[in-house]
Amino acid sequence: MTIVTALKTRLHRRDLDAVLISQPHNRRFLSGFTPLDHGIEESAGLLLIPSKGRPFLLTDSRFELAARHEAPDFEVILYRKGLLPLLKKLFTRLSIKRCGFESHYTLHSSAEKLLSLGAKLDVELVPLSGIVEKMRLCKDKEALTKIEQAVLLNEEVFQEVYGQMRPGMTEIEVALQIETTMRLRGAERPSFDTIVAAGPNGALPHAVPTSRALKEGEPIVIDMGLILAGFCSDMTRTVVLGPPDSQTAKIIRLVRKAQLAGMAAIKAGVTGKQVDSKARAVIKEAGYGDKFGHGLGHGVGLAVHEAPGLSPRYTKKLQVGMVVTVEPGIYIEGWGGVRLENMVVVEQGGCRLLNRDTTFLDI
Amino acid sequence: MTIVTALKTRLHRRDLDAVLISQPHNRRFLSGFTPLDHGIEESAGLLLIPSKGRPFLLTDSRFELAARHEAPDFEVILYRKGLLPLLKKLFTRLSIKRCGFESHYTLHSSAEKLLSLGAKLDVELVPLSGIVEKMRLCKDKEALTKIEQAVLLNEEVFQEVYGQMRPGMTEIEVALQIETTMRLRGAERPSFDTIVAAGPNGALPHAVPTSRALKEGEPIVIDMGLILAGFCSDMTRTVVLGPPDSQTAKIIRLVRKAQLAGMAAIKAGVTGKQVDSKARAVIKEAGYGDKFGHGLGHGVGLAVHEAPGLSPRYTKKLQVGMVVTVEPGIYIEGWGGVRLENMVVVEQGGCRLLNRDTTFLDI
Repeated sequence: MTIVTALKTRLHRRDLDAVLISQPHNRRFLSGFTPLDHGIEESAGLLLIPSKGRPFLLTDSRFELAARHEAPDFEVILYRKGLLPLLKKLFTRLSIKRCGFESHYTLHSSAEKLLSLGAKLDVELVPLSGIVEKMRLCKDKEALTKIEQAVLLNEEVFQEVYGQMRPGMTEIEVALQIETTMRLRGAERPSFDTIVAAGPNGALPHAVPTSRALKEGEPIVIDMGLILAGFCSDMTRTVVLGPPDSQTAKIIRLVRKAQLAGMAAIKAGVTGKQVDSKARAVIKEAGYGDKFGHGLGHGVGLAVHEAPGLSPRYTKKLQVGMVVTVEPGIYIEGWGGVRLENMVVVEQGGCRLLNRDTTFLDI
Repeated sequence: MTIVTALKTRLHRRDLDAVLISQPHNRRFLSGFTPLDHGIEESAGLLLIPSKGRPFLLTDSRFELAARHEAPDFEVILYRKGLLPLLKKLFTRLSIKRCGFESHYTLHSSAEKLLSLGAKLDVELVPLSGIVEKMRLCKDKEALTKIEQAVLLNEEVFQEVYGQMRPGMTEIEVALQIETTMRLRGAERPSFDTIVAAGPNGALPHAVPTSRALKEGEPIVIDMGLILAGFCSDMTRTVVLGPPDSQTAKIIRLVRKAQLAGMAAIKAGVTGKQVDSKARAVIKEAGYGDKFGHGLGHGVGLAVHEAPGLSPRYTKKLQVGMVVTVEPGIYIEGWGGVRLENMVVVEQGGCRLLNRDTTFLDI
């Protein structure tokens, strides 16, 4: 219950009697409740956490068993007639007068209803942004262990599928093979849609797999991640079937050099912007500055994209226990792309690499 | 452009100079732009449709090619510095004074920013709910053809995998086989997470596939759907490996009888509630009323769950061109479940069945 206790302290500081949690990752972080929402319009449940006493998990009958099993510290209540009538009862029963809600994960239409209920009951509804996300920034030991397991399983899946890749297979076939292998090996699901982009298709950082057949010699970008025990992994390898041509080998080495420069810059106290610039400088100096159009990395945890960022725009300092990707890339229209992505944990004087796979060193 | 023109008429009627469309299905419906959002927090783009003149598709560089290719009637503009600065320019350039936005698909935090921009520019931002969803209720010929194709492809996938199902395979293996087959046969993706629930697991209507091995004789609920050309299919079959025991056969026949009663009640002018009650009566009379805990069906189109509903709560009338599922079920804790689901189009004096698969008649 330490996380919930820490949240309660923050509620006291803001003079809030309670907070309503609707963001699914925050809900899982605080309660352990695993069901997914089918988009923001079909929620699997909300938490109501009063600043004093036992917290509540509000859900419907479909998720009752999961709720009782996974969130034993929460009092599970089913909203049989909708959420608002239940909140009305609870606000009164618990004498809640000021209640926060997640402005960044509540629909405008839902917020309007909530605010009008508050007006009737004389309860002030206070929009909050990021109160729980801030608590998720630095990972504790247990979270780091889970993230590392997600990274290692992802690498096993990559190695299994990489070993079966042959010229003539399509990008879609490889992507499906990856996602199927993830699930057969126990992942909850992919953490995002797998990217397999061969030859010219690799020039788009967010390519969608096509029916293009793999050819020898050209770079093939594989960006893949999975969710295990709630935590995400995210890894990119650029591989070549048969010997790479000289252009491909040169660019892979350059991207790897930029990645190492980025990793060398990571430690607690430096900004995301500083780290990004170290890696970017390597690519710029080689004359490819305009071919690296995205940020160097992003935080990973319960969400596959979360704070902090390693990018020209992120001027806050990195802290011990943050987990970030380091993923420089070079994208050349008509030719293709190369991206290499590993995950590291920020430490006091440096960072710790979570990946063990070194496929790119073959080239 | 007829759909956009119809929307413009509705804008005029409400005295709106423009509307901002953020809901992804509505965006695709109006523009043809196919990219998916990664949750409401990572939008692939918005439409700004003025009541006069050419409509706009606002997106970022990742989706530029798709936007220009798929939405040729829209002027594509990239928001390089974020959405709000771009909206500021467009509101001024187009002399927009009253602009609607989708209250049911805009985050409270985003709406606050939008409203404050509006206050600065003297633009009234008007929350709307369901203005485009209402236009999606009745499907035109082209949409019906696409839905029918999605239904038939779904059946082909089902038959292929059903033919390979053997005792000893796990629920997860069957579900993965279904989803892989969908994609290899050209579906964009599953329209929801495939359900394969054998024996007692079938007692939960929204079961998640487990590593439980299939056994002979017990009911196996398979609920599956795919997206093809943007449109969804949704079908449930309950199958048995080997001869069914007498309880299973009896309940499958009962559920089928309820399904036929529901279908017989569907025609333009009756309410969703009336249809639901006809099917429900069959199950009630047989003594299983409390084992059928969900509505009889729901609308299907660009979204796999949309209006109308066939349920005790849906008191509006069905109209020609609506597409609905008819999916009664019986769920018995400790034993399992049976659900049969087909899709039909509402017509003047009745309905037209979109499914051809009759696997359940084997029993």
